[in-house]
Amino acid sequence: DPALKVFSLNSNPELAEDIASHIGTHLGECTVKTFSDGEIQINIEESVRGCDVYVVQSTSSPVNQHLMELLIMVDALKRASARSINLVMPYYGYARQDRKARSREPITSKLVANLLESSGADRVITLDLHAPQIQGFFDVPIDHLQGVPILSDYFEAKNFDDLVIVSPDHGGVTRARKMADRLKAPIGIIDKRRPRPNVAEVMNIVGNIEGKTAILIDDIIDTAGTITLAANTLVENGAEQVYACCTHPVLSGPAIDRINDSKIKELVVTNSIPLPEEKRSEKVTELSVAPLIGEAITRVHERKSVSMLFD
Amino acid sequence: DPALKVFSLNSNPELAEDIASHIGTHLGECTVKTFSDGEIQINIEESVRGCDVYVVQSTSSPVNQHLMELLIMVDALKRASARSINLVMPYYGYARQDRKARSREPITSKLVANLLESSGADRVITLDLHAPQIQGFFDVPIDHLQGVPILSDYFEAKNFDDLVIVSPDHGGVTRARKMADRLKAPIGIIDKRRPRPNVAEVMNIVGNIEGKTAILIDDIIDTAGTITLAANTLVENGAEQVYACCTHPVLSGPAIDRINDSKIKELVVTNSIPLPEEKRSEKVTELSVAPLIGEAITRVHERKSVSMLFD
Ligand SMILES: Nc1ncnc2c1ncn2[C@@H]1O[C@H](COP(=O)(O)O)[C@@H](O)[C@H]1O
Ligand SMILES: Nc1ncnc2c1ncn2[C@@H]1O[C@H](COP(=O)(O)O)[C@@H](O)[C@H]1O
Repeated sequence: DPALKVFSLNSNPELAEDIASHIGTHLGECTVKTFSDGEIQINIEESVRGCDVYVVQSTSSPVNQHLMELLIMVDALKRASARSINLVMPYYGYARQDRKARSREPITSKLVANLLESSGADRVITLDLHAPQIQGFFDVPIDHLQGVPILSDYFEAKNFDDLVIVSPDHGGVTRARKMADRLKAPIGIIDKRRPRPNVAEVMNIVGNIEGKTAILIDDIIDTAGTITLAANTLVENGAEQVYACCTHPVLSGPAIDRINDSKIKELVVTNSIPLPEEKRSEKVTELSVAPLIGEAITRVHERKSVSMLFD
Repeated sequence: DPALKVFSLNSNPELAEDIASHIGTHLGECTVKTFSDGEIQINIEESVRGCDVYVVQSTSSPVNQHLMELLIMVDALKRASARSINLVMPYYGYARQDRKARSREPITSKLVANLLESSGADRVITLDLHAPQIQGFFDVPIDHLQGVPILSDYFEAKNFDDLVIVSPDHGGVTRARKMADRLKAPIGIIDKRRPRPNVAEVMNIVGNIEGKTAILIDDIIDTAGTITLAANTLVENGAEQVYACCTHPVLSGPAIDRINDSKIKELVVTNSIPLPEEKRSEKVTELSVAPLIGEAITRVHERKSVSMLFD
């Protein structure tokens, strides 16, 4: 069987190390630097001829830099005669630009899919795409892993009595339903609506949350405006305590201050995007997706189904 | 005839304005912003349906940001039914990664060409590619304009008596020859060589420079190490005075300090890359490529040959 090699670029070096050790291998050697003018320079330092190569890189912030690193790496691997080039993208950036909401908008998620394919990628392994439709933007195979089981297992171990899983908006109800099934709990929905134009939004809660432990779940927490408002609304309306969780902690701008100042007791995230020092907080717990991704890579390489990892 | 529209992204807004006014039009309206997490957001604010669109954007620093802006703009234009999408790239970044110098290196210039084409670009108008072979990396038509005439005209007006045009390395001799032809001057070459490994390079001058005004010409000046060393060598070897010029003032890192501290009397550059405040100096003169590019766009749009603009 051809050799399996795992390489890391600059987005998630620690996660990549963990993935490699779950697979029972070491990271391949490559250097990723920038020239004085900011252009990226990549050198692969060991042979990849005939190998099945897995490149770990989230297109998290700085997104354009991380995306170009990935594209350049794929170009280098292709020219170095790798047998297959498999992208492991725990976080797929630009996923929220997935449709034309207005005239003359780009669909950047699709553009990125095209760029990755045209550079020479043969497969993508990713986690909780903002919209599952993005799978269809690729012509190459895509394995779409789920964060809900990891987040659910963490909360299951806490053995809360009276639990409700709450979606912070209408778009996230399916995800809340999945977690609720695993935790055998009912669901609730934060039902935001604007009664008339230019009138403040009203936060309405659908479902019974009184006296319960509420767990808010979302895929991405970016500036944390929605989730902290939702948490405070739940507490004001009688929830006993509020936890929050998400797969992808983008946490840009005021996010970490908002979380620290909010009624959220604990925020549970994965390491699909690593948290730099300034985004760490006593309130934030990070769970690793290394075992999940390591298992997925092993199964893909052994030509086994990965569908059991999907839920 | 379909309408011609010119849009600017963030690399060269002033040059784009000048190009539009040379053509006798105004810039099209579009907004290019970034979301809180650093993802680029583009909105085209006027119809481009059926139009021939020209997008002015150099892939200068921050190169990955500028490249993504361009790719996203092309995606948006394509979806907005533009009739043709023409990229005006006064500076084509990543041009120095144009071949595999070592095993397992990428060829990023070719990757960028592929990305631009796969996003939907129909034509590229550019200026002084680092290697003319990069034209062959594109399957779409590419018009390759030259900076030498603009730089030569500037020096011609100075009416120096005893002139020599010097190439700072072997790679640039053809360019020096072109300028020398226009200025009816002889050429010289800085012949750097390392006598033995791990021994300092020796700067040798081929050609007669004694008592003459020397003009050093290069395509790109990046950290300015080569050009300032060359200038000092020329003065030490008896040149009366030394000027320098280039098409693309990358001027990264220590460049501007090196130029200010060098024997270069004046550095003449074009605005293919705009100079931010901190890269301006009394020694640096900026010439505009707006008339050249404006003329090229007009001729392309009127289906006239642009070959007279090539030298
Ligand atoms: N990086 C981003 N940060 C914030 N908003 C975004 C970003 N990318 C796209 N959007 C907007 O988010 C909306 C899509 O989010 P959603 O409705 O949750 O799928 C669209 O209105 C986009 O314009
Ligand atoms: N952005 C850059 N800054 C400095 N050197 C570069 C850059 N891109 C490529 N190079 C190197 O420059 C050399 C090519 O320059 P040249 O021989 O003048 O064509 C190669 O060795 C490249 O590795």
